[in-house]
Amino acid sequence: MSALKPADRIGILGGGQLGRMLALAAARLGLDAVIYDPEADCPASRVAAEHVCAPYEDLDAVARFARSVAAVTFEFENVPVESAREAARHAPLRPGAQALETAQDRLTEKTFLNAHGARTVEFRAVNSAGDARAALAALSAPAILKTRRMGYDGKGQAVVKSAGEAAAAFERFESRPAILEAFAPFRRELSVVAARALDGEVRAFALSENHHAGGILRESLAPADVSAATEAEAVAMARAILEALDYVGVIAVELFELEDGSLRVNEIAPRVHNTGHWTMDSCRTCQFEQHVRAVAGWPLGDASAFASARMINLIGADVDAWPRWLAEPDARLHLYGKRAAREGRKMGHVTLTRPLSQD
Amino acid sequence: MSALKPADRIGILGGGQLGRMLALAAARLGLDAVIYDPEADCPASRVAAEHVCAPYEDLDAVARFARSVAAVTFEFENVPVESAREAARHAPLRPGAQALETAQDRLTEKTFLNAHGARTVEFRAVNSAGDARAALAALSAPAILKTRRMGYDGKGQAVVKSAGEAAAAFERFESRPAILEAFAPFRRELSVVAARALDGEVRAFALSENHHAGGILRESLAPADVSAATEAEAVAMARAILEALDYVGVIAVELFELEDGSLRVNEIAPRVHNTGHWTMDSCRTCQFEQHVRAVAGWPLGDASAFASARMINLIGADVDAWPRWLAEPDARLHLYGKRAAREGRKMGHVTLTRPLSQD
Repeated sequence: MSALKPADRIGILGGGQLGRMLALAAARLGLDAVIYDPEADCPASRVAAEHVCAPYEDLDAVARFARSVAAVTFEFENVPVESAREAARHAPLRPGAQALETAQDRLTEKTFLNAHGARTVEFRAVNSAGDARAALAALSAPAILKTRRMGYDGKGQAVVKSAGEAAAAFERFESRPAILEAFAPFRRELSVVAARALDGEVRAFALSENHHAGGILRESLAPADVSAATEAEAVAMARAILEALDYVGVIAVELFELEDGSLRVNEIAPRVHNTGHWTMDSCRTCQFEQHVRAVAGWPLGDASAFASARMINLIGADVDAWPRWLAEPDARLHLYGKRAAREGRKMGHVTLTRPLSQD
Repeated sequence: MSALKPADRIGILGGGQLGRMLALAAARLGLDAVIYDPEADCPASRVAAEHVCAPYEDLDAVARFARSVAAVTFEFENVPVESAREAARHAPLRPGAQALETAQDRLTEKTFLNAHGARTVEFRAVNSAGDARAALAALSAPAILKTRRMGYDGKGQAVVKSAGEAAAAFERFESRPAILEAFAPFRRELSVVAARALDGEVRAFALSENHHAGGILRESLAPADVSAATEAEAVAMARAILEALDYVGVIAVELFELEDGSLRVNEIAPRVHNTGHWTMDSCRTCQFEQHVRAVAGWPLGDASAFASARMINLIGADVDAWPRWLAEPDARLHLYGKRAAREGRKMGHVTLTRPLSQD
């Protein structure tokens, strides 16, 4: 049987806020969530039926975990591919390990995207300081040097304005394999969050317009004010990516909208995504429920929006404003149960909603 | 400090579906739920940070539980009053034990309601078969004999049409203290779910119209189609009850609407209530979040509805239709994670919603 039934167990690799919100969505649908995370007191463990506390690299523990559930998914793209493959030997892994492999390496990812009709900015592989210099000359300054693996929230990235800076940045990143990306003169950042079911059906949420600062998402506005053509192009790219990966679950596709209105894919996240949080309070089915439905082998839900949303991340000390948000009638407050509000840490989010008909 | 802060623990006596939905609401607000329930695999335990598995009568276990949390509440009105009082010695108990005591005994409850301006049907205390006969003569047939304590979902109730039937019913209920209630020639059943905050603020949800069969709620329609006067009368009664009990949290007031349009209180439930489930998918703040806010000492949320709802209980084998509900775009499916679909058991519910502006 590839479809789950109520009271079955769904396994989630990763127990941060995304795993927590997935577990809550699974619970509403009668499923028991089992969280795999090496951190004893991780946010998702406190809303789950069971918590397997073991390192991601412990293949025996991963195998036992996978055998104890009816399907496995993950909340973050840096799950070791070998662990994902081990899980897939014992339970359906949705999405599959190929999605992880593709998303874990910026060079693989961009090569894959371009091969499937999803345009990216220009880029060059950088394996040496010499590569870095040559790549900068080819793409022209400024450009962005990024390590190929393990970057998130702006980590492992540097804007470089000369061949010398490019070479220096490469060395500062410990000469790890990198890519140099052309600087996209973008008008704004958009994203599309979409899901593909086991039967191949694809449904996308409305696009969101995203505002970052310091490499971290601060706000999303959704549905984004975009043309029908832009929306259609974004959804077509998401669909092509989902189909090329034979993907099951929710994916996020981060986009640059260039000055001429055309789109470039910045990166993909093979999971529920911060820019989809607005769906929790504004869509008939939210991204977390949509992902659970897909992973369970169930039909996707209605992804349409009934309200417009401004989603505000509460980062670090931002969370201290929780009493104000709680008292704001238009705000829906989501807190992740994290105990220490470290700088840059996502502690919660707030959605300000407005009925769509009043816009 | 009487107000909780994020990542605090909230204790819930009772781990059924109401405790489960309370725990999920608490989690969204960053609180850790601790469930106290004697059943090892109860529905709420699988979404909670901790489960204390002990009998409700174990006062030592109750005391330890209460000391480990920042506030205690309950999901059902048959928590032993002595256990509630023990919990209240170690943590704020919201609502208080008086609400439990009042609701646990139909005679106490009706006497209390009438004393505070909330009209009920006529009733007589019945402590003997002779009382039963005399009460029936006083109220005239048909009437309803109900045990004073531990009745729910129609259990411990009998419609009686003669003095002999009244006496026989009393004896069939093992001569337990009972009351005889006059039969209310009601047009329909309504309820109002309302909350009172620690600072005394009261907010009510729109009334719901409720349909029972076999003593079990089958459907609620909300907002109910009632006059402004009926709505105002219901909310005024709820407010009077909440204030008389110095209540903190959500209460449900079940009402009969008589043929002449006047209201009688059938009973009160000092907790979140099945007739308030529609608020999860149709109100800005649902009854579970509202209760958590009150228990946490936080301001109440906006209780207004943005959609109309038809809430359908999935009872026993009804739950087998889950794949159909999952595929229905207008339906929001809630399953409680119960493993055995016994007859009469509430397994889940579905809310069919429609934007209010389109009504």
